[in-house]
Amino acid sequence: MTQPFPFSAIVGQEEMKLAIILTAIDQSIGGVLVFGDRGTGKSTAVRALAALLPPITAVVGCPVNSPDKESMPDWVKLDSFDTAEKQTPVVDLPLGVSEDRVTGALDIEKALTKGEKAFEPGLLASANRGFLYIDEVNLLEDHIVDLLLDVAQSGENLVEREGLSIRHPARFVLVGSGNPEEGELRPQLLDRFGLSLDVGSPKDIDTRIEVIRRRDAYENDYNAFMKLWTAEDATIRDQIVTARKQLALLAVTDDVLRDVAELCLALGSDGLRGELTLLKAARAYAAWLCAKEITRDHVKTVAPMALRHRLRRDPLDDAGSTARVDRVLEDVLN
Amino acid sequence: MTQPFPFSAIVGQEEMKLAIILTAIDQSIGGVLVFGDRGTGKSTAVRALAALLPPITAVVGCPVNSPDKESMPDWVKLDSFDTAEKQTPVVDLPLGVSEDRVTGALDIEKALTKGEKAFEPGLLASANRGFLYIDEVNLLEDHIVDLLLDVAQSGENLVEREGLSIRHPARFVLVGSGNPEEGELRPQLLDRFGLSLDVGSPKDIDTRIEVIRRRDAYENDYNAFMKLWTAEDATIRDQIVTARKQLALLAVTDDVLRDVAELCLALGSDGLRGELTLLKAARAYAAWLCAKEITRDHVKTVAPMALRHRLRRDPLDDAGSTARVDRVLEDVLN
Amino acid sequence: MTQPFPFSAIVGQEEMKLAIILTAIDQSIGGVLVFGDRGTGKSTAVRALAALLPPITAVVGCPVNSPDKESMPDWVKLDSFDTAEKQTPVVDLPLGVSEDRVTGALDIEKALTKGEKAFEPGLLASANRGFLYIDEVNLLEDHIVDLLLDVAQSGENLVEREGLSIRHPARFVLVGSGNPEEGELRPQLLDRFGLSLDVGSPKDIDTRIEVIRRRDAYENDYNAFMKLWTAEDATIRDQIVTARKQLALLAVTDDVLRDVAELCLALGSDGLRGELTLLKAARAYAAWLCAKEITRDHVKTVAPMALRHRLRRDPLDDAGSTARVDRVLEDVLN
Amino acid sequence: MTQPFPFSAIVGQEEMKLAIILTAIDQSIGGVLVFGDRGTGKSTAVRALAALLPPITAVVGCPVNSPDKESMPDWVKLDSFDTAEKQTPVVDLPLGVSEDRVTGALDIEKALTKGEKAFEPGLLASANRGFLYIDEVNLLEDHIVDLLLDVAQSGENLVEREGLSIRHPARFVLVGSGNPEEGELRPQLLDRFGLSLDVGSPKDIDTRIEVIRRRDAYENDYNAFMKLWTAEDATIRDQIVTARKQLALLAVTDDVLRDVAELCLALGSDGLRGELTLLKAARAYAAWLCAKEITRDHVKTVAPMALRHRLRRDPLDDAGSTARVDRVLEDVLN
Amino acid sequence: MTQPFPFSAIVGQEEMKLAIILTAIDQSIGGVLVFGDRGTGKSTAVRALAALLPPITAVVGCPVNSPDKESMPDWVKLDSFDTAEKQTPVVDLPLGVSEDRVTGALDIEKALTKGEKAFEPGLLASANRGFLYIDEVNLLEDHIVDLLLDVAQSGENLVEREGLSIRHPARFVLVGSGNPEEGELRPQLLDRFGLSLDVGSPKDIDTRIEVIRRRDAYENDYNAFMKLWTAEDATIRDQIVTARKQLALLAVTDDVLRDVAELCLALGSDGLRGELTLLKAARAYAAWLCAKEITRDHVKTVAPMALRHRLRRDPLDDAGSTARVDRVLEDVLN
Amino acid sequence: MTQPFPFSAIVGQEEMKLAIILTAIDQSIGGVLVFGDRGTGKSTAVRALAALLPPITAVVGCPVNSPDKESMPDWVKLDSFDTAEKQTPVVDLPLGVSEDRVTGALDIEKALTKGEKAFEPGLLASANRGFLYIDEVNLLEDHIVDLLLDVAQSGENLVEREGLSIRHPARFVLVGSGNPEEGELRPQLLDRFGLSLDVGSPKDIDTRIEVIRRRDAYENDYNAFMKLWTAEDATIRDQIVTARKQLALLAVTDDVLRDVAELCLALGSDGLRGELTLLKAARAYAAWLCAKEITRDHVKTVAPMALRHRLRRDPLDDAGSTARVDRVLEDVLN
Repeated sequence: MTQPFPFSAIVGQEEMKLAIILTAIDQSIGGVLVFGDRGTGKSTAVRALAALLPPITAVVGCPVNSPDKESMPDWVKLDSFDTAEKQTPVVDLPLGVSEDRVTGALDIEKALTKGEKAFEPGLLASANRGFLYIDEVNLLEDHIVDLLLDVAQSGENLVEREGLSIRHPARFVLVGSGNPEEGELRPQLLDRFGLSLDVGSPKDIDTRIEVIRRRDAYENDYNAFMKLWTAEDATIRDQIVTARKQLALLAVTDDVLRDVAELCLALGSDGLRGELTLLKAARAYAAWLCAKEITRDHVKTVAPMALRHRLRRDPLDDAGSTARVDRVLEDVLN
Repeated sequence: MTQPFPFSAIVGQEEMKLAIILTAIDQSIGGVLVFGDRGTGKSTAVRALAALLPPITAVVGCPVNSPDKESMPDWVKLDSFDTAEKQTPVVDLPLGVSEDRVTGALDIEKALTKGEKAFEPGLLASANRGFLYIDEVNLLEDHIVDLLLDVAQSGENLVEREGLSIRHPARFVLVGSGNPEEGELRPQLLDRFGLSLDVGSPKDIDTRIEVIRRRDAYENDYNAFMKLWTAEDATIRDQIVTARKQLALLAVTDDVLRDVAELCLALGSDGLRGELTLLKAARAYAAWLCAKEITRDHVKTVAPMALRHRLRRDPLDDAGSTARVDRVLEDVLN
Repeated sequence: MTQPFPFSAIVGQEEMKLAIILTAIDQSIGGVLVFGDRGTGKSTAVRALAALLPPITAVVGCPVNSPDKESMPDWVKLDSFDTAEKQTPVVDLPLGVSEDRVTGALDIEKALTKGEKAFEPGLLASANRGFLYIDEVNLLEDHIVDLLLDVAQSGENLVEREGLSIRHPARFVLVGSGNPEEGELRPQLLDRFGLSLDVGSPKDIDTRIEVIRRRDAYENDYNAFMKLWTAEDATIRDQIVTARKQLALLAVTDDVLRDVAELCLALGSDGLRGELTLLKAARAYAAWLCAKEITRDHVKTVAPMALRHRLRRDPLDDAGSTARVDRVLEDVLN
Repeated sequence: MTQPFPFSAIVGQEEMKLAIILTAIDQSIGGVLVFGDRGTGKSTAVRALAALLPPITAVVGCPVNSPDKESMPDWVKLDSFDTAEKQTPVVDLPLGVSEDRVTGALDIEKALTKGEKAFEPGLLASANRGFLYIDEVNLLEDHIVDLLLDVAQSGENLVEREGLSIRHPARFVLVGSGNPEEGELRPQLLDRFGLSLDVGSPKDIDTRIEVIRRRDAYENDYNAFMKLWTAEDATIRDQIVTARKQLALLAVTDDVLRDVAELCLALGSDGLRGELTLLKAARAYAAWLCAKEITRDHVKTVAPMALRHRLRRDPLDDAGSTARVDRVLEDVLN
Repeated sequence: MTQPFPFSAIVGQEEMKLAIILTAIDQSIGGVLVFGDRGTGKSTAVRALAALLPPITAVVGCPVNSPDKESMPDWVKLDSFDTAEKQTPVVDLPLGVSEDRVTGALDIEKALTKGEKAFEPGLLASANRGFLYIDEVNLLEDHIVDLLLDVAQSGENLVEREGLSIRHPARFVLVGSGNPEEGELRPQLLDRFGLSLDVGSPKDIDTRIEVIRRRDAYENDYNAFMKLWTAEDATIRDQIVTARKQLALLAVTDDVLRDVAELCLALGSDGLRGELTLLKAARAYAAWLCAKEITRDHVKTVAPMALRHRLRRDPLDDAGSTARVDRVLEDVLN
Repeated sequence: MTQPFPFSAIVGQEEMKLAIILTAIDQSIGGVLVFGDRGTGKSTAVRALAALLPPITAVVGCPVNSPDKESMPDWVKLDSFDTAEKQTPVVDLPLGVSEDRVTGALDIEKALTKGEKAFEPGLLASANRGFLYIDEVNLLEDHIVDLLLDVAQSGENLVEREGLSIRHPARFVLVGSGNPEEGELRPQLLDRFGLSLDVGSPKDIDTRIEVIRRRDAYENDYNAFMKLWTAEDATIRDQIVTARKQLALLAVTDDVLRDVAELCLALGSDGLRGELTLLKAARAYAAWLCAKEITRDHVKTVAPMALRHRLRRDPLDDAGSTARVDRVLEDVLN
C-alpha cells in the first residue's frame, strides 16, 4: 500500500506545518484542525503527520497501549507484561463508523462460542496515548460527536451497554480536517482541538505549478519521489525528538503567564482552555527553536493558531477571527 | 488511573464549593447543578465532590446498596447478609447510555445459558443511596430524562419490560453540569436539583494565572500536587462528618419556617419543593458553621442557590434570577 | 420499603380528598385526574389512595383477578379454583413501559424452552378489577394512550400480535396526575377519567408551614409519623366500606335524573358519560354522608369535579371551566 | 364475559339502527360507518350488530371460512371437508395491531420447530365472508389503512413477504365508528363503507333520562336487563332472515335504475360505487318492509345514508352533506 | 376464485380499451397507466388485460421464464431444460410488499436448514417477459419506485445484499392505475409507462344505467354473465395474435419517422422515448386494423395516449395536456 | 443476456464520446459524469464504456484485483499467486444497495457455520483498479455518498464494524449519469468526477430520425446490428491501447503547466484538483491524437469538460458554467 504524501514535500503552508510539528512535540496541546475548501490539500497535510511521530513504549498486546502493568485496566487479560516500542497510534475514525466500534462493545464471537461476556475494545481504546484522525469532521454524526466530547472531557471511556460496565483510559489527540461549507462545527467540538488553521489554494502561479509538479511526480514516479522526501521527514522527526527533551527544561515565567492571561482576557475567549493551550504551544515552539526560554515572541507567533477558533462570535465586529487575534496581539503585547 | 483534580485546589468559586459541601452534609438537599460556559471548570468541581464523601454501610454484594437484610428487594439472592463500609456510590451516567443500562434489564447471559429470567441491575440500582453524576446534562436524551424524573419522583425504580416486573429503591442525588448555550433544561428536571449555580471564568488576571499554574502543576507534577491537596480534601471531609452529626441537633424554629415560607411566597416559586430545600440547605449551612441554631442569616446565604432555578419566567422583569432572589431577600428578610 | 405519605396527613386540599374517597366508594365512577404545577403534592395525594381501598375476592393465582372460575379466560391454566381475599390491585404504569408489558405478549421463556406459544399477561391484566395509576400522564407516549383508550372503551384487552390471539377482561379505574404545562391531554383521554381537579400551592403562610412541618416529620421521623396517620387512614377505609354498602340502598329518583340531565344539557357537555358519572358521584357522596336519599345538594357538590373536564372549549367565554360549571349550577339548580 | 349492550335497547337513533339492519340483510351493501362525538353511543350501536347476524355454512376448520372444498385456497391442509353452521364472523381490528396479524405471516413456531415455511392466517382470513370491525377508525395507522383499501378493492389478500407468496379470498364488510374531531378519513376509505351516519347526543331531556336509565340498568341489573332485550334482538334477527329471502325476489326496474342514476349524477358523487350501493340499500329496505317491489320512496329513504359520505367538497356550498343530499332528493325525485 | 370482470363487458371507454389492446399486441410499447377518480372502473379495465394475452414459451420451472437454456441465469439449477407454453405472467405488486420480495433475497429456509446461500427470486423474476401490475401506483413507497425505475432502465435485476450478488433479466411491462388526487407521480415513473389515459365516470344516464346493470349481473348472475363475455374476450385475443404477426410485416417509412419526430419536436416532449413509443403504438394500431402500411392517421390516433404524459409543464399554457397534444397534432400533421 | 448499445453506434454527442475515451486512456483523470434529462441516452453512453476498456493483469481469485502478491491485503488467503488477464472491472452500484454490500461486511455464512470472523468483500473491493458505475447518481442515499467520498479521498476502504477492522485499496473511477431535475449533487461529489457533460435531445430532425432508426434496429434486429458495431468498438479500443502507450512519452512542459494554472486561477475554481485533471485530460487528448507534444489547443479542447463542474456559483454572473469557461478560455489562452 502506498504511503501518504510526505510532510516535507508540501509546498508552502508554513503555518499549517508549524502547527502539526508543535502538536507532535507536545501532544497535550490537543491536536490540529485544518479548515479549507476542497482540494486545498488539507487532508494531505494532516495525514502526513503520522510519519513525524516517534514511537511509544507499551505493554505488548495491551489493547489500550498501557505503558506498564500498573496502568492496565483490570479487564485486560495478558500472560506477560513485557513492554516494547511501537508506532504512536494514529487511528482513523471513518465516516459511517458504528458506535460500538468507537466505544467497544460486547465481543459477540466470544459470547456465542464461549457464552462469556467479554469486552471487545474499540477505536477509542486503540487511540489511547495517540492520535484520533477524523477526515471531514463536519460530516461526523452527532451522536458520535457527543461520545467524543464526553470522552475527551474525562480522558476515560465508560461503556455501559449490553450488560457490560467497562472503563479504560482514552487520552488521545484529535486531528481533523473540515470544510466550513458543509456546516459549522459545534463550539464544544472546536474547543477540543488545540490549534486550528484555515488553508486556501495558493494564489501565486509559480507555487501552484510547483504543487502540481510534485503531485504529478508522486503519482507518476512514486518510488524516486518517496526516497527523496522520506529522508527529509526523518530529519524533522529527529528534530521533534530533540524538542521534546527540551520541553522539560523550559520553565514558565510569570511574565509569560501574564502575557498569556492578558491576551485571553482581552480577546474574551471563553474559559481557560485557550490559555493553557497557548502556554503549551508557546513552550513547544520555543523548544522547536531550541530556545533557552519562552519569550513573548513565541507567544505571539502561536497565538493565532491557538485562539482563533475560541472567540465568541461578535456581531458588531465583522473582521475574521484571525484579524481579531492579530489586532489584540498588537494592542496587548506590542 | 489518575484521580480527579482535588476539590480544595480549586481557586475561588466559593459559592460553588459551598453548595457542594452542603449537599455532602445533607444528601436530601438534592444535589447541585452547575451551569457555565465551556472551560469554566464546572465539571472539575462537580467531579471533585466524590473525594469529600464519607463511606456508607451496606450489605456486601447487594446491588442496590441496601443497609440491611430487611430493606433488600426480594429478587436479590445472597448467601450472607453481612454489612461493611463502602464508598458512597458516585455513579456516572455517560451520554449515549442505553435505557436498559439505566434501569436494568433482563440478564441475557443467564437467559441464554440457564434459560432463566434474571434481572441485571442498572445504574439506578448502583446509585441508590449515593450520587448520580451527569456531565452535560443538556445533552441527555429526552427519554432518559423522563425516566430519571419518574424515578426521582417516586424514589423507586420500576422495570416493566422483557417480561420482567421488578422494583427496587432508587434514592439518589442528582449532580450535574450543563452549558446553557446548548439548550435549556426542562423546569421539571431543574426542580429535581436541590441547588444551582452559574459559574464563569475569573475576570481577574491574578486569579487566572493561579488557575493555570495549578492546572499546569496537576498535569506536569501530578504526584507532588496530589499529595499536597489530598490532605486538604481529607480535612474538609472530616468537617463534613462533624456537620452531619450536628444536623440532628438543629431544631427548626417557627421563625425559620416562617422566613422560608414568606420568602418563597414572595418569590412566587412554584410548589413547595423550594421551601423544603431552602430549609434543609439553611440547616446544613448552620451545621457546617457549627452554629447552635438556624438563623435568618443562614437562610439568606443559601437562598439564592436554593431558589434561583425555581422561579417562573417573568416577561416584565428582565433581571436575572439571581438579582430577583436578592431583591426579594432584601424586601422580605431585611 | 417506605409507605407513601398517608392520605389523612395531607393538609387542606379538601376537594381532592373527597374525589379520591368517592372513587374508592364506587369504582365505576372512573377514577380521578389531578392537575397541578410541580410540587403541589398531586402525586402524593393520588398515591395515597391505595391505603384506602378494601380488599377484593379473587381466584388464587389468576393473572386477571377473576372473581370465580366461570369468569376466567380460557387461556388461564390453574389446578385449583379456590378464591381468597387480596389487596385491590393498584398497578403503576411507569413511563417508558413497553407496549408488550402493557398488553401482555408472547412468553419468550416458554417459547424458547418448551417451543410453545404461551401468553404472558401484562399490566392491563394485573389491573383488572383495580386501579391503573399513571404519574405524569402528559408524558405518556401516544401509542400507549391509544391502547388505553381502546381498552377502556371495550373493557377488554384484545392482543393480536406475534401469532397470539388472546382476549381478557380489563376493567380498571384510571388514576393519574398531570401537569398542564407539559402539554394538553386529548379530550378522549380526559373523558375516561371520572373526576378531575386542579390543585395549586397553598397561598396561606400557615398552611404552607404546616405542610412543610408534616413533610419534614415524614422524612425525619418516619415511624412515629406513620403510626399516627396510618390509624387515621384505617378509619377512613372503614367509612368507605360502610358507604359502599349504603350505595345499593340509594334509589335514583326521577328528580335527580332530571337535575343531572338538565345540568349537562345546559353545560353542553359532549356525550352522556358526564351524566352517568355525575349520577354515580352524587350517589357515592350521599352514601359517604350516610344520607337516606340522593338530593340536589349532593349533585351540586360533586358537579364541578365530574363535569369540568368535559366542557367544550368556548372561545367566547374565557371563564375557566370551573367558573362555567358554577355559573350553570347557579342558573339551573338554584 | 358480558355481552354487548343489546341492539334493541338503544333509545332513538332510528336512522343508525336502520342502516345496521340493511347491512345485515345484504352484506354486499358494504358496511356502516358511524360518526359522532365521544359518548354518543356510536360504538355501542355498531358492536350490537353481531347479535343480529344469522349463521353461515363453512368447511369445519377452514381458516378463511370457505363454503366448500372447491373454494378453499390450496395452502389450507385439512383431513376432512365437512361443513357446518357457524356464527357470521365479526372480527375486531384492535388499534396497535401489527401488520403481520392483519395479513397473516410466516408461522414462526412451525418454521422454528419443523423448519417448514407455513402460513399463519391473519385477521383478514378470519373476516372472510363476515364483518371487520374497527373502533376509532381515525386512529388506524396509515399503512394498515392502505392494506385494507388494497384488499377491499380486490377481495383478495395477497401476502408477499418473508419468502411467502400466498393469496386467499378476503371479502368482508367494514363496520366502524369514528370521531371527526380526531382527524378526517381519506375519501378512499370513506368510499369503502356502504352507509354512513352522524349521530349526536339527544337534545331532549326525556330521551336522555331514558338512555341513562337503561344504561344504569345494564350496569347494575345485567341479567334481568339482558333477558328482556335479547329476546327483542332475536325477533329482529328473524325479520332479517326473512328479508334476505325476499331480496332475490325483488327485480330491479328501469325506473329505479334511472332514479338512482339521476340522483347520483345530480349530486355529482364520484364514481359508480354510490349508485350500486344506493340500489342495493333500496332493495334491502324494500325487503325489510316486505314490499313487493322497489319504489322511489325506498330510494329516497336510504339515499342520505348511502350517498352523504361520497360527495365532493363544494367550497361554494357550505350546507352540510346531509342537507345537500336532501335538497337534491327534493329536486330530482319529488 | 372468481375471474376479473371481462374486458369486453366494459361499457364505453373506447380509448382505454384500445390502449390495452395495443400493449397486448406489442409489449415493447411499455404498458398502460390509467388515471381516474375512485369508482371509474380503472382497476377493472387494467385487471381485465390478463385475459387477452396469448401464452409464452418458457423453460419449465425457470423462475425468470427464460425462453431457452442459453438465456437462463447461471444461478438457476434445473435438471431438465424442456420448454412449454404458459400464461404470459401478470404479476401483482401489492402495496406493502417488502423490498426483498420485489427483488428477491437470500432463501432463509435453505440458509438455515442447509447452511447454503441460495437466492430466492422475487416478483421481478416472476414478471420477466410479462406484465407487472400496480394498483394505486401513487401509494407505492418511494424506495420501491426507485427500484422499479432502476430495473426498468436496465432491463436487469441486480441484487447486492445479504452477501448475495445476483443478476437476472427483468424485462416487464408496467401496467397500473392511479388516482391523481392522491399525489402526483414522478416524471421518471410516468415516462416508464408507454401509454396513458384519463378516465372519468360516464356523464350520460343511459351509459351509467348499462354499467350498473352489467355490474349487477356480474355480481348476482356470475356464471351466465361470464359465459357470454369470456367468449367475446377470446375473439379479441385471437385478433391480437393475428395483429402480432402482422407487426413484423409493417415497414417503417421515412415519412412516418419524420411525422413522429416533427410531432415530438413541436411538443417539446423530453427525450426520445416518446418518439419510439409513438412509432411502436402507430405500428401496433396499423396491425390491429390489418392495415398494409403505417399511415399518418395511425400516428394521429395514438399520439395523445403516447405523448400526453411526457409533456413538460408549461406555466403559460393552462390547457390540459390532452388539449395541447391535439392542438399540435392539428398544426403539424394536418 | 444482451450487450449494451454499442459506443460507436451513438449518433452525434461528440463531446460525450471524447470524454469517455479520455477516461479510458487515463483512468487517473477520474471518470465522467453525464448530466441530462430523461431519455437523452446518457445512461446508454456511459454503459457503453465497458466495451472500450482493455484488460488488466491481476492475481487470480484476489477479491481486490491486486496486480501481484505484494500488494494484496493480508486478510486475503489464497493458495496460489498466479496472475492472469481479466476484464477491467466495471461495477454497478445499484440503487437500494445496502451499506454492507458497498464496504463489505462480516461473512455471516462463515460466522454461523465455522464460528470465525471472516471479511466478505463488497463492491468497493470489486471496483478496485476499475470503474464504479452509478446510474441516477442523484438518487443515491446520502450515507452511501459519504462513504464513497471518504474512500475516493483516501483510495482505501476502511471497515470498522461488527467487530471487524479491515482495510484494502479501493482506487476506482466514478462513472455516472444524473438528472439535474431530481436534485443537485453536492460539490464534494461533483469534484470527484474528472470530466462532466450536459447532454440534451438533438434538436435536428434528421439526427433524431437516425437515432430512432438505430435504436429500432438494435431492438428489432439485434444480431446484425451488433455484428456491425462491435467491430467498430474494437477499433476504438485498439486506438485507446495505442494512446495509453503514447501517454508516457508526452512530457509536461512548463508552458502547458502555466496555461493550466492560469486558466484555473482566472476561473477561480476551488482547489487544485481541477488543474491536475485538466493537465491529465490534455495529455490524454494529445495521446489520442497521436500528437508528439501537449499543446495549448489540447488544453483548450478539454478545458470545458474538466472544469465546468468545479466553478463556484457566481450570483452576479448568470451565464451557464460552460459559457463562463469559454469566455475565460478566450481571455486567457487566446
